[in-house]
Amino acid sequence: MRAGSNLPAVGGYNQAVILDAVRRSADGVSRVEVAASTGLSAQTVTNIVRRLIDDGLIVEAGTRGSGVGKPRTILRLQPHGRFALGVHLDPSVIMVVLLDLAGSVVAHRAIPTPPSATAARTLGRIVRTASALVDSVGVDASRILGVGIAAPGPVDVGAGVVLDPPLLPGWRNVPVRDELARRLALPVLLEKDVTAAAAAELWMDAAGERGDMVFFYYGTGVGAGIVVHGEVLRGVSNNAGDIGSMVVGGGPAAPTHRRWRLGDAMLPRFLVADAITSGVLVGDAETMTTAEVREAFGRLAKARESDPRAASLLEAVAEDIAAGIITLVNALDVDHVVFGGPFFGPVRGLLLERVPPLVNGSPLMVMPHEVIFAESAIGEDVAAIGAACLVLDHALSPRPAGLLIRR
Amino acid sequence: MRAGSNLPAVGGYNQAVILDAVRRSADGVSRVEVAASTGLSAQTVTNIVRRLIDDGLIVEAGTRGSGVGKPRTILRLQPHGRFALGVHLDPSVIMVVLLDLAGSVVAHRAIPTPPSATAARTLGRIVRTASALVDSVGVDASRILGVGIAAPGPVDVGAGVVLDPPLLPGWRNVPVRDELARRLALPVLLEKDVTAAAAAELWMDAAGERGDMVFFYYGTGVGAGIVVHGEVLRGVSNNAGDIGSMVVGGGPAAPTHRRWRLGDAMLPRFLVADAITSGVLVGDAETMTTAEVREAFGRLAKARESDPRAASLLEAVAEDIAAGIITLVNALDVDHVVFGGPFFGPVRGLLLERVPPLVNGSPLMVMPHEVIFAESAIGEDVAAIGAACLVLDHALSPRPAGLLIRR
Repeated sequence: MRAGSNLPAVGGYNQAVILDAVRRSADGVSRVEVAASTGLSAQTVTNIVRRLIDDGLIVEAGTRGSGVGKPRTILRLQPHGRFALGVHLDPSVIMVVLLDLAGSVVAHRAIPTPPSATAARTLGRIVRTASALVDSVGVDASRILGVGIAAPGPVDVGAGVVLDPPLLPGWRNVPVRDELARRLALPVLLEKDVTAAAAAELWMDAAGERGDMVFFYYGTGVGAGIVVHGEVLRGVSNNAGDIGSMVVGGGPAAPTHRRWRLGDAMLPRFLVADAITSGVLVGDAETMTTAEVREAFGRLAKARESDPRAASLLEAVAEDIAAGIITLVNALDVDHVVFGGPFFGPVRGLLLERVPPLVNGSPLMVMPHEVIFAESAIGEDVAAIGAACLVLDHALSPRPAGLLIRR
Repeated sequence: MRAGSNLPAVGGYNQAVILDAVRRSADGVSRVEVAASTGLSAQTVTNIVRRLIDDGLIVEAGTRGSGVGKPRTILRLQPHGRFALGVHLDPSVIMVVLLDLAGSVVAHRAIPTPPSATAARTLGRIVRTASALVDSVGVDASRILGVGIAAPGPVDVGAGVVLDPPLLPGWRNVPVRDELARRLALPVLLEKDVTAAAAAELWMDAAGERGDMVFFYYGTGVGAGIVVHGEVLRGVSNNAGDIGSMVVGGGPAAPTHRRWRLGDAMLPRFLVADAITSGVLVGDAETMTTAEVREAFGRLAKARESDPRAASLLEAVAEDIAAGIITLVNALDVDHVVFGGPFFGPVRGLLLERVPPLVNGSPLMVMPHEVIFAESAIGEDVAAIGAACLVLDHALSPRPAGLLIRR
């Protein structure tokens, strides 16, 4: 059975619609413009705006003339009206950020993920780091909407449990949400890392251009944040976006057995191992720490300009990524792909230069449109920022599904 | 900018919500039950039900006691209150169906797709067939909501144009929607075939179990109808669901060069050619008509029980399909896969027996849940019925997006 709609539900939705309209306006908007853009009556806009000003979420910021008539009062977001904490639990580094209502990072701190510490100990460090971050900027706890934690899949979002992340062996069935909520005395939500990253990209996308996109996440693993009609596709168990098992490359020319699966084909540790085998780098990939892999991966990417062996190895990576993107674009019919994640930086030049022509020029692309490529507007902290954005989003964004009566 | 919501929009939505509640009740429902299940007030339900009865869309059908109190009047759909026509333009056969409001096929007719006729001539035949179908059951034209036409992609749904279907060479840039609307004097909508098929499955899914699924369409080509939260994922150009370019199988054991792409790996004409090469069938696949390919494909499927060469060839097909489904399930996190389409029938036993264990037992499946497999509730006419369902859906179904003010 589907739920109907009633007036109180519509009222809450319209408040979020107006806040969203104010938030997305770079130069502020007048009440008249808000009414015109949302289709709501002038009276409704006036009433809701008064409530939002009383709550400290928006402010009146001067007036603007419009030729004839009375100058209009401009409404702007009050960025420091509310805050949210975001945590990214990554196999190599834990990032904690404090975001304001405008999505700006007010403070952030990175701590290396202790490889052998228990999850309980690491959660303790996360709690101390988050508290120190809030203290450092002197924000009152009552203004913090909550904490978002982004973790590698599979996760159980409903229960708030990290289930069995392949690269975080100590984190099997850990109830991170309730544990953090208890220790921080704040509402906490858990999301998969790629979902958080895609949410961040949407939140920062003032122009609303990326309503249908794939966020291609290059981290310690690979993943896709899929956005359909401006909402992140989460899937029945909130684990959508696993593309590591996708077959790519293929064909008898594929140089190593590892190149059959996208997750293996672009795994930094494997690529560093390939680079050592082909003489581009020296060392032992098996025994390297995550930080050393990262540093070696950066050297491999740099060697692309000077060493043809590095160039050929990285060209194969670009081809595999293009193959994965073609599969996603043909299946989902999206027209934007955004690159990001902690390992994107070193291969930024390679991916932005090589992948677009490989995808748009491929005879396998059957969509009647090109794909537009971009890099994340946010950078390496995208998942932590995304987790905080989800808290803001949960509290503030209009969603048609929010119109349904909760039963 | 997002649109707000207002009362007239909510009213239209609630009418669709109530009609949907009545439609999905197998034994009829009372006004009290409708109010309880939708969350709407008794007065709202009473008013809207009166309007629906006046419009001939629902009827009062007796009373039902409930222990104490006055017996309640039961509401049922009036199936013949409205009808919709559905057309499936397939490379081998054109199917035309007349559906009533309950989604039952009132009449249907198949005509072979003329391989060399112009699109204009074939559209003329479609018009005559549709008109004859309506006349044959004596339905008044005013009760026909419109015509849905399902066609192979790529299509331009906005312009109503079939763009460039690979297996229908005479149908490049044909404005089928406007042409049919002009000749039939009815509203017409065009959709991609897999989208229509998935819509049919949703429409017939009384239990609402398939809110997140992949409809795996085995036709002259292969495609996927992707359903997220009870709505078909159409994509930015309405061409989502193209999975033929997906790399499958792979590995040096793949028997022929054709097994690298899912679309080729399961193409009936290629499989018949493989069966001829391995001695299971005799003939020349290159010169066979589409009807002959279909008949030969049926013989190949039957030979699975008796001929190990056929069994091995078909096992490889099941493995390739399983590989494609694993990629889709991991990316989309769906838990239902429904098989259907015109070529599913002959391989029904193979796919329902072999694919579920290959998918659920695969080490590549990373979702924390199993996938439930089923066959289409509808059968081979699924795309034509789906096209008609989309007309019903367009006119009658509640969609939260319908709450937004049209600007």
